[in-house]
Amino acid sequence: MKQYALGLDFGTESVRALAVDCETGTEAAEAVFSYPHGVITETLPGDTKPLLPEFALQCPSDYREGALHVIREVLKAVRADEIIGIGVDFTACTVLPIKTDGTPLCELDEFKSNPQAWVKLWKHHAAQPQADRINATAHRRGEKFLDYYSGIISSEWLLPKCWETLEKAPEVYNAADLFIEAGDWLIQQMTGSFSRNDCAAGYKGLWSEELGNPSEDFLVALDPKLAGFNGKIVDRVIAAGEEAGTVSEAFAAQSGLNAGTPVSAAIIDAHSGVPGMGVSGAGPLCMIMGTSMCHMLPATDLHLFNGYAGVVKNGILPGYYGYESGQAAVGDIFGWFAKDFMDRPFAEIESKAAALKPGESGLIALDWMNGNRSILMNANLSGAILGLTLGSKPEEVYRALIEATAFGTKIIVDSYLENHVPVTELVACGGLIRFEHVMQIFADVLEMPVKIAASGQAVALGSAIFGAVAAGHARGGYDSIAEAVGQMTKPFVRTFEPKPETSEIYRELFAVYKRCHDLFGREEPHLMKQLKQIKHQAAGEIDQQDR
Amino acid sequence: MKQYALGLDFGTESVRALAVDCETGTEAAEAVFSYPHGVITETLPGDTKPLLPEFALQCPSDYREGALHVIREVLKAVRADEIIGIGVDFTACTVLPIKTDGTPLCELDEFKSNPQAWVKLWKHHAAQPQADRINATAHRRGEKFLDYYSGIISSEWLLPKCWETLEKAPEVYNAADLFIEAGDWLIQQMTGSFSRNDCAAGYKGLWSEELGNPSEDFLVALDPKLAGFNGKIVDRVIAAGEEAGTVSEAFAAQSGLNAGTPVSAAIIDAHSGVPGMGVSGAGPLCMIMGTSMCHMLPATDLHLFNGYAGVVKNGILPGYYGYESGQAAVGDIFGWFAKDFMDRPFAEIESKAAALKPGESGLIALDWMNGNRSILMNANLSGAILGLTLGSKPEEVYRALIEATAFGTKIIVDSYLENHVPVTELVACGGLIRFEHVMQIFADVLEMPVKIAASGQAVALGSAIFGAVAAGHARGGYDSIAEAVGQMTKPFVRTFEPKPETSEIYRELFAVYKRCHDLFGREEPHLMKQLKQIKHQAAGEIDQQDR
Repeated sequence: MKQYALGLDFGTESVRALAVDCETGTEAAEAVFSYPHGVITETLPGDTKPLLPEFALQCPSDYREGALHVIREVLKAVRADEIIGIGVDFTACTVLPIKTDGTPLCELDEFKSNPQAWVKLWKHHAAQPQADRINATAHRRGEKFLDYYSGIISSEWLLPKCWETLEKAPEVYNAADLFIEAGDWLIQQMTGSFSRNDCAAGYKGLWSEELGNPSEDFLVALDPKLAGFNGKIVDRVIAAGEEAGTVSEAFAAQSGLNAGTPVSAAIIDAHSGVPGMGVSGAGPLCMIMGTSMCHMLPATDLHLFNGYAGVVKNGILPGYYGYESGQAAVGDIFGWFAKDFMDRPFAEIESKAAALKPGESGLIALDWMNGNRSILMNANLSGAILGLTLGSKPEEVYRALIEATAFGTKIIVDSYLENHVPVTELVACGGLIRFEHVMQIFADVLEMPVKIAASGQAVALGSAIFGAVAAGHARGGYDSIAEAVGQMTKPFVRTFEPKPETSEIYRELFAVYKRCHDLFGREEPHLMKQLKQIKHQAAGEIDQQDR
Repeated sequence: MKQYALGLDFGTESVRALAVDCETGTEAAEAVFSYPHGVITETLPGDTKPLLPEFALQCPSDYREGALHVIREVLKAVRADEIIGIGVDFTACTVLPIKTDGTPLCELDEFKSNPQAWVKLWKHHAAQPQADRINATAHRRGEKFLDYYSGIISSEWLLPKCWETLEKAPEVYNAADLFIEAGDWLIQQMTGSFSRNDCAAGYKGLWSEELGNPSEDFLVALDPKLAGFNGKIVDRVIAAGEEAGTVSEAFAAQSGLNAGTPVSAAIIDAHSGVPGMGVSGAGPLCMIMGTSMCHMLPATDLHLFNGYAGVVKNGILPGYYGYESGQAAVGDIFGWFAKDFMDRPFAEIESKAAALKPGESGLIALDWMNGNRSILMNANLSGAILGLTLGSKPEEVYRALIEATAFGTKIIVDSYLENHVPVTELVACGGLIRFEHVMQIFADVLEMPVKIAASGQAVALGSAIFGAVAAGHARGGYDSIAEAVGQMTKPFVRTFEPKPETSEIYRELFAVYKRCHDLFGREEPHLMKQLKQIKHQAAGEIDQQDR
């Protein structure tokens, strides 16, 4: 009898199920379901009141409905008794208020018209005022948890979002028995058991194994009404690969799965990609290369410094510290320039840019068109192009933009290396891997091999791997991630080796990039901030005139 | 009987004649002649040997032939006895070696195949090594003439070009009785008399009324073989508006002009535009706005500082110190971006860019796509765009480029003002004046009115004015420039007044521009130089591979 692990991958727009053969890694069945309500930014379902600009909400029934749909689809190709374990990855911090029985507050008549009662998606950005006060208070009190986040708490994270609920809708806050990550909620819906995945708890929830949750003192210093907030958070913290529970009779009846099937603790979607790309140990920087870029780096030791978004013990792979960093725009930059500035066949510009030699254009760009996520962590920074002459061509600018994103990665990698966190190679998945010259530029600039993951669904595959580990050897799975990765992933499909002949010229270009990075990012960040302020000021004047 | 003054305007590609009614300023007749040999950059006429890359030569017979052609054309509309005086403007430093009878060496069989014997056009750039050594030696010796040129001698000027001849072709140098500006040579051809116009002598020839020519000591310190160089330069220095001579019998016979017609001393073409734009006194910054931009500023006092290309007493208008500065690219930048990057109907982008509000884009550009001529005087600088986001649009960049050229002018104007040289308003002529929003941006950024000259041929009109002054009142002309300008130019056709409501936001944007200007132009000029070097290095590798 075949044995499959099932990965459920909850992205921003859709959920995907992937059934993977535990022995061969063959991806046997796949199904995708787009959330009927998508990302809610204009009005709540069944309501006409406009939401505020920074809102990004979701509807929890979309997740439940989606899970049931994709599972039933997969069960047309594999049998329920062939599924030995299930893993779940989910965007984070994507959080909702619920009652102790798991009922989302937004499903109660009392709260269905209150935006604060709905799921706040990871990119809900309305809690910046709360994040600002959290940062200020934490720094003033010297909170140790800051060290795990390079000193900056994002507005996207758990505490700002929940405090926003308290301030904007105290009735919702008070009625909420729990605030729960959507990934953990989904697992409760499947198993009946509550758990809190250490990945989201660590990267987005200010929790660490060493320090636990933020202290009651700190919460009260923020706002006396936050007293007892930790009581609204699930206290059973477990890691992906650990068993969160088994499929309940109720969920089995709805989905067609077998009751009792082991379900792994959840994990953040990007982080699930690490084992899915074939990585099971320290050293490789795992890059999910799309519109933006996440880097996940497993390491054996903890080093606290300013240079990552977060570091969490067991946060990516059990037994390793997981460092996470990112670049706020990569593919988005290429798309923006190609579409808005060149208005030409993409292939034409691609081949022209690829044909250029390193340094030939004399151009350097700063890749901050969407701010800088790591390591400057400054959303007020913006993009720049330097070295322009009357002979500069669009394809040269395009090439410089690609090089800039590679230089941006090198800044981050160099920071890891300087702080004694080894990076041995680059492993890539995502939409950009199809551009060979982009991959080659990354190899040449970083002077490291870039290895391309075999699976086109590395994130969902990672979840399936965690499902197989949750099942364990006794139930047909694996007792270790390394073993599961070894069996269930295929070798890298391609390796881009750095070309030694380009290293000198890229080092020279990088020196100029680095200096401009430090000039505008560290020494005079007020310049680009000033430009943003002028822009807002000018836009404000227009608004007034238009009214 | 009508009385006309004739202006002969020798540009880079063609010569223009303009007959102007001395009483009304009416432009009565006009003719243009394109030089048959144009700018010679590939091979000499009748030769196949390729010229070196930085060469830009001309053929002196083109000037003679062109002058005769346009004069004869104009004489179809006005009678020779109606022409009371002639003025000549010419590009500079455009220099040729001649015999004492005026014969160009390149017209002798012995030298016709030697590029060094031909006219070196102003943009001949092969004398940079000589200019570098002149600068080094002059600074070491503390030569006072440096103060008149902000401490930098350009490779385009007289001494570097002549020293290049000495080093590359000593036989040409030794055979040359005189090295003469083409404008002065043309006047010798017309009148039989030698003169040296103080404008070219001052701005391009290291001559000043106060100091005369560079000293023999200095010349010998450069190269013992340069001993006696001043003997190869015409020593009768006179200003435009002074009579250089009268039309000779020989030239009268060829051209149809009357012998004895007074001819003014020559002047550089840009400088001739000042009276032609209607300016006859101190205060207005006169801008010739085309692919690049010249600023000419008459002032009552001499202030020596680093901020102009040159300052010459009587160099533009008699009785005034003439300050000259410039921007190496203006219209060229707009053309480059519109053509290469936008590839769209120019009118579409123009109207979109014009519709934007100041600061709305949040973008700042540095307008150094062709280096910086004033006041940084650094050809290694290059252009930049800062503040880019994923929402930045091409028309916003285009608008930022326009603003950058205005900010570039403001840097120069502020430098004049800080050094006690008054600038009271901006007066503009040239190809860019048809773009109303560009003119308005200059007015708003500079917070000064921009006045548009009436004549579309301000440079040729200026020459005619100098011709009328050379004739003087007794012969039907004028005894002063002010009087001639008052009669022969028409009022400004339009004034763009600064809009007070834009001044605050432009001051804020300018503060960012200024800081970036100082960062890349003064504090860390090595960054952009490094980009140029990397570019050349990369290009060199390509050359080697292609061979």
